[in-house]
Amino acid sequence: MELSPDQLTIPERYKLMIGAIVPRPIALVSTISREDRFNLAPYSFFNGVGSNPMTLLFCPANDSDGREKDTLRNCKPTEEGGTGQFVVNIVSESLARQMAAAAEPLPYEENEFELTGLTPAPSTVVAPPRVAESPLAFECETLQVIRTNPGEPSGGNVVLGKVVAIHAADGVIDERKRVDPAKLAAVGRMGGLGYCLTRDRFELPMGKKALDTPTPIS
Amino acid sequence: MELSPDQLTIPERYKLMIGAIVPRPIALVSTISREDRFNLAPYSFFNGVGSNPMTLLFCPANDSDGREKDTLRNCKPTEEGGTGQFVVNIVSESLARQMAAAAEPLPYEENEFELTGLTPAPSTVVAPPRVAESPLAFECETLQVIRTNPGEPSGGNVVLGKVVAIHAADGVIDERKRVDPAKLAAVGRMGGLGYCLTRDRFELPMGKKALDTPTPIS
Repeated sequence: MELSPDQLTIPERYKLMIGAIVPRPIALVSTISREDRFNLAPYSFFNGVGSNPMTLLFCPANDSDGREKDTLRNCKPTEEGGTGQFVVNIVSESLARQMAAAAEPLPYEENEFELTGLTPAPSTVVAPPRVAESPLAFECETLQVIRTNPGEPSGGNVVLGKVVAIHAADGVIDERKRVDPAKLAAVGRMGGLGYCLTRDRFELPMGKKALDTPTPIS
Repeated sequence: MELSPDQLTIPERYKLMIGAIVPRPIALVSTISREDRFNLAPYSFFNGVGSNPMTLLFCPANDSDGREKDTLRNCKPTEEGGTGQFVVNIVSESLARQMAAAAEPLPYEENEFELTGLTPAPSTVVAPPRVAESPLAFECETLQVIRTNPGEPSGGNVVLGKVVAIHAADGVIDERKRVDPAKLAAVGRMGGLGYCLTRDRFELPMGKKALDTPTPIS
């Protein structure tokens, strides 16, 4: 089966992308408005970029009217009218419901911390609070926002952030800076309303040795 | 526990990021050099960007000498010396070993299709072949490459690609453009040498209804 994006509506393209690009990590992003109001929203178009400097990204698309989401309004650089800061909170199994609840479209002045019952904890370097219940959080300064289709409905935006501080719950990171996947118990995003667990894991060596490695899957 | 990236070495930062930002989707990226040689390599700093236009990204960091990887050399825009094209092939369970094998560092002129035994199939719009065994492939034209630290070891790069054609194996996409997660059987990337399956799934509504939704996890 072959498809051209030109034959698809915008919602069909979105459905196809979120079903195909799986499993996705979830960033529960906390920001603060210039009027000092908190915001919290989940983004699964999220990933690392590189380790020199330690950089990550997430992609808050425009809404269906072409407007920027509250998270982007808050975290864009100061010269664009934002605060230039955000916190990425990693979502473990015990936070899945609250994370999904934070996707509720609230008016700009209302607060997803109150809606979800999650606890804002002070950050060290940036103004937006982290989520106290999250097992791992990255405080970030916004390096740049790339807009692929500014002002247009569902136009994509890429927020690049430099990590300036890291918070981890006890036992999640060992002294060699390895993260314990069982203690993190991260949840991944699938298509539609779907999520997946990360309990069913296996290892493979990198490179041609992998071809001869037995795995539980085949 | 609180950490500053400044206290960490580059490999420690990398280890922490790949352990924390999980589960990650995997793009097996096929490209072609200007001398018409095929290249194939996996990237898990990969995600969607937006659906108008249908855009995705992946992040091939510089190597430890600050050089661009073969994939980036090949897919960067023509004005930067590349071909401006690539194909993202989604990795199902049955391709996991070959995908990991394609991470083998081969000399520029050698071919990961031969190493892994995967089959190059002609693309429709772009020159690089897709992987015939992949259940879903996105042909892409490179829109832009953002370099966060050009020429430096492990400097991050973001390749933004516009999707120009989609290939799907029979039954993977239904007539409403929903992807069947069981037929896709995607594998996700975890920290270290780890991977996860996407078989253990559940659903949550978006918004505050999620707070009262029973799930298998709590």
